[in-house]
Amino acid sequence: MTDQLLLGEGPVTERIHGDLPLVDAETAAAHVDADATVLTSGFGSVGYPKEIPLALARSIRDLQLTVVNSGNVGEEIDVDLIKAGAVERRFSYQSSRVARAATNEREVAFSDRNASSIGDEVQYGGMVDADVAVVEAVAVGEGWFIPSTSLGQVPAFVEAADELFVELNHCQPLELQALHDVYRPDAPPNRGPVPLTEPDGRIGESYVSFDPAKLVGVVETDREDSTYTFRDPTDDDLAIAANLRSFLTTEMERSPVFDDAVHLQFGVGSLGNALMGELQELDFGDRDVVYYGELIQDGLLDMLDTGGLECASATSMALTAEGQTRLFENIERYAEDIVLRPADVANHPGLIDQFGVVGVNSAIEVDIYGNVNSTHIGGRRMINGVGGSADYNRNSLVSVCALPSVHGEDVSRVVPMTFHVDHTEHDIDVFVTEQGVADVRGCSPVERAERIIEHCAHPDFAPKLRSYLNDVAEDAYHIPHDVPRAAKWHGY
Amino acid sequence: MTDQLLLGEGPVTERIHGDLPLVDAETAAAHVDADATVLTSGFGSVGYPKEIPLALARSIRDLQLTVVNSGNVGEEIDVDLIKAGAVERRFSYQSSRVARAATNEREVAFSDRNASSIGDEVQYGGMVDADVAVVEAVAVGEGWFIPSTSLGQVPAFVEAADELFVELNHCQPLELQALHDVYRPDAPPNRGPVPLTEPDGRIGESYVSFDPAKLVGVVETDREDSTYTFRDPTDDDLAIAANLRSFLTTEMERSPVFDDAVHLQFGVGSLGNALMGELQELDFGDRDVVYYGELIQDGLLDMLDTGGLECASATSMALTAEGQTRLFENIERYAEDIVLRPADVANHPGLIDQFGVVGVNSAIEVDIYGNVNSTHIGGRRMINGVGGSADYNRNSLVSVCALPSVHGEDVSRVVPMTFHVDHTEHDIDVFVTEQGVADVRGCSPVERAERIIEHCAHPDFAPKLRSYLNDVAEDAYHIPHDVPRAAKWHGY
Repeated sequence: MTDQLLLGEGPVTERIHGDLPLVDAETAAAHVDADATVLTSGFGSVGYPKEIPLALARSIRDLQLTVVNSGNVGEEIDVDLIKAGAVERRFSYQSSRVARAATNEREVAFSDRNASSIGDEVQYGGMVDADVAVVEAVAVGEGWFIPSTSLGQVPAFVEAADELFVELNHCQPLELQALHDVYRPDAPPNRGPVPLTEPDGRIGESYVSFDPAKLVGVVETDREDSTYTFRDPTDDDLAIAANLRSFLTTEMERSPVFDDAVHLQFGVGSLGNALMGELQELDFGDRDVVYYGELIQDGLLDMLDTGGLECASATSMALTAEGQTRLFENIERYAEDIVLRPADVANHPGLIDQFGVVGVNSAIEVDIYGNVNSTHIGGRRMINGVGGSADYNRNSLVSVCALPSVHGEDVSRVVPMTFHVDHTEHDIDVFVTEQGVADVRGCSPVERAERIIEHCAHPDFAPKLRSYLNDVAEDAYHIPHDVPRAAKWHGY
Repeated sequence: MTDQLLLGEGPVTERIHGDLPLVDAETAAAHVDADATVLTSGFGSVGYPKEIPLALARSIRDLQLTVVNSGNVGEEIDVDLIKAGAVERRFSYQSSRVARAATNEREVAFSDRNASSIGDEVQYGGMVDADVAVVEAVAVGEGWFIPSTSLGQVPAFVEAADELFVELNHCQPLELQALHDVYRPDAPPNRGPVPLTEPDGRIGESYVSFDPAKLVGVVETDREDSTYTFRDPTDDDLAIAANLRSFLTTEMERSPVFDDAVHLQFGVGSLGNALMGELQELDFGDRDVVYYGELIQDGLLDMLDTGGLECASATSMALTAEGQTRLFENIERYAEDIVLRPADVANHPGLIDQFGVVGVNSAIEVDIYGNVNSTHIGGRRMINGVGGSADYNRNSLVSVCALPSVHGEDVSRVVPMTFHVDHTEHDIDVFVTEQGVADVRGCSPVERAERIIEHCAHPDFAPKLRSYLNDVAEDAYHIPHDVPRAAKWHGY
């Protein structure tokens, strides 16, 4: 195929290659069945399609769509389309206020899956009948497109879907192609190992391939990503960062695994961004610092700029508008050190294991025995999806849960029992709050409780937690609990 | 090294190679420090060391050992040694009545980790200071030994430990060497992918290598494994098996992934054994049936005998005494189709993913929203460790939780809320009881609850569960709950 040959000859310099069906967003939206399953690009709130979702939101048809994505998308989908009542069912990550309300009202049926595996679940696992993929691209040809600011599970979605719409976004720079490494595993059971041996290795292409017969339309746009906004680091963020640095310093001395290099991952959010930014204060000695995570936030660009970071692998550039401008103006320089991968590679359990990643993820709350709730307040009110946090919490060599010890002044984030568990007591090694570090490796549940209360709980709540532990520990149970009393803590 | 060359020239026919320090068990036990961390072989209640644990149990010293294994071990460790009060700390799987009582009394500090990763956690993750490995073997030389009926995390433990004792067991046949494929991944971060592309592939050696300077002593024994005993299948087991077959039949038609082969895994236990045995009743058509799991139970030998099973990969032969005799008398024939691997390969998340495994594991109870408790009754009383169930539940292409709907007549295994979560709502796809099949893929939590109650709950309890769901669903929450009411269900 000519396009494929062209692709092999050097960077793509034109946005449209060949005779493609250019359509407007209304035409595209009208083509989508009212009860279709729509698989979209988008991860970390960037690289998602905008015009077709907006056109669907404007549609006067009675839509009952199933909308599937692999990570956070922007307001066009998670506000406008939801507000229009067009979404009946929704996978997987979400965090907008509107989507959250619709989910808690159960107007939208939400099913929350792990970022690493939702591609397989859609393509092979029987989760949905995949009707149409809608993806954002910076260039498109007959049988290929170049994704924009995120990859996520786009390759799997495109392979799974019967039909494809491409949103060609003129305000996303063509040079983004330099970041992408699109590797596609074969279908199970004849799927070989992912042949990646280094975090900055390249094992794929800069583009996503598709069966040209699937392409129904290309919609052009110049609508920008509704990027992340992060607050400035708070005193608590800085104290958590300092405690984390202190732990990492000890940890690097502990194990020869970290002699030459440290591989880190950080969860998304204001805290994650602050932690990335504050890493520069840590003396890594002669070690290479490598990021092997799912999201690159602004904090990492600082470290790349100062040479403190050897390279970064992720599935999305979850930057602020400012960070995005900074990236776009210097893509070629950043592309030397940044690789974007599909989420089934970026979050691959085996690869996280291979690189001996130290994963740092936040949570809504943790319980004294080390169970972690990252999605549902009080066990029932959804705040956001689990995203890829479980991929890293489960498969990192050292899993760190970092969070402030309190929410406001009245709510302890360390609780006797959490009534929704996203990460089990078998998964997390170390807890870090602004109060200190609880290293619970090798500890029994009651020992974990003692350390978490002593080192991580806020002084305003530690006595009450200690009293709970002392009282329940009078009974001979491995994980002593008084559930009704633990429930009262959450206002039940 | 001569021994290594000998090993390369054909099967090992002698049990002792070279000038090895033969010692009696008492001498070996006396060498172990009172507060040592002892890493043992053993998985699925077979292949564990016997004489040295017994000698330690007989010791008049005040021992405070940390005992680490990767899977179930026999009574010499989990009854005698625990009863002697010699164990202060214990990882990871356990299920004996005595060990359970000591754990719930918190006389033994128990930390429960996943079977796939405890090797790395011991070797690289900072979980313990690994003093001495004690392993069972069928042959030993200067720098190598051939494990017996299980592998588990033995290679990692031997690499991690400062010192090594080998128990040479004369009643375990030398021919077991034909089953083993010992592959050792490099240390992170320079660990490549595991180069296994087929479940019956062989990528390693029949023996475990060690630094000869570590070998303190070889203890000879002819003590047999304290093997599993399984009850005969109950009517409920058979009904669960029939429902599972019905699901598998539909599933094989659903996806091209299963066109040529079906890769299955079953959890250990009487139910698991019954499900393996009853698989023969299923018409797989022209498909190869492949077992890629952690344990091989008697039921699988039947399928191998009838030619219904193409091959089986696991980390242990968790057979009954009868099954073990059957294996031992026909090892060479079984070795054509069976491969035993270290647990970090057998339970490797990436390999479970590669083969598109349908994993079938049991549980103590499930809640209506799909959270699974496989270790702690009422959220507090430990029954057994999590073992490798989370490895398969999390990484299988299709994860099935199979269990009876009731325990006795009075206890429903489907509950409003489970107060210990080993496998989260993000992990399980299908629930099977003797009542039916609840396929919850793509379902929201409330939809899951409806299906689980309708298809899986026992008729004696379904109305009460439905009433709970109806009442809590009046509130606008994603996962509606009334925790105090849910706690009452468990007798709180």
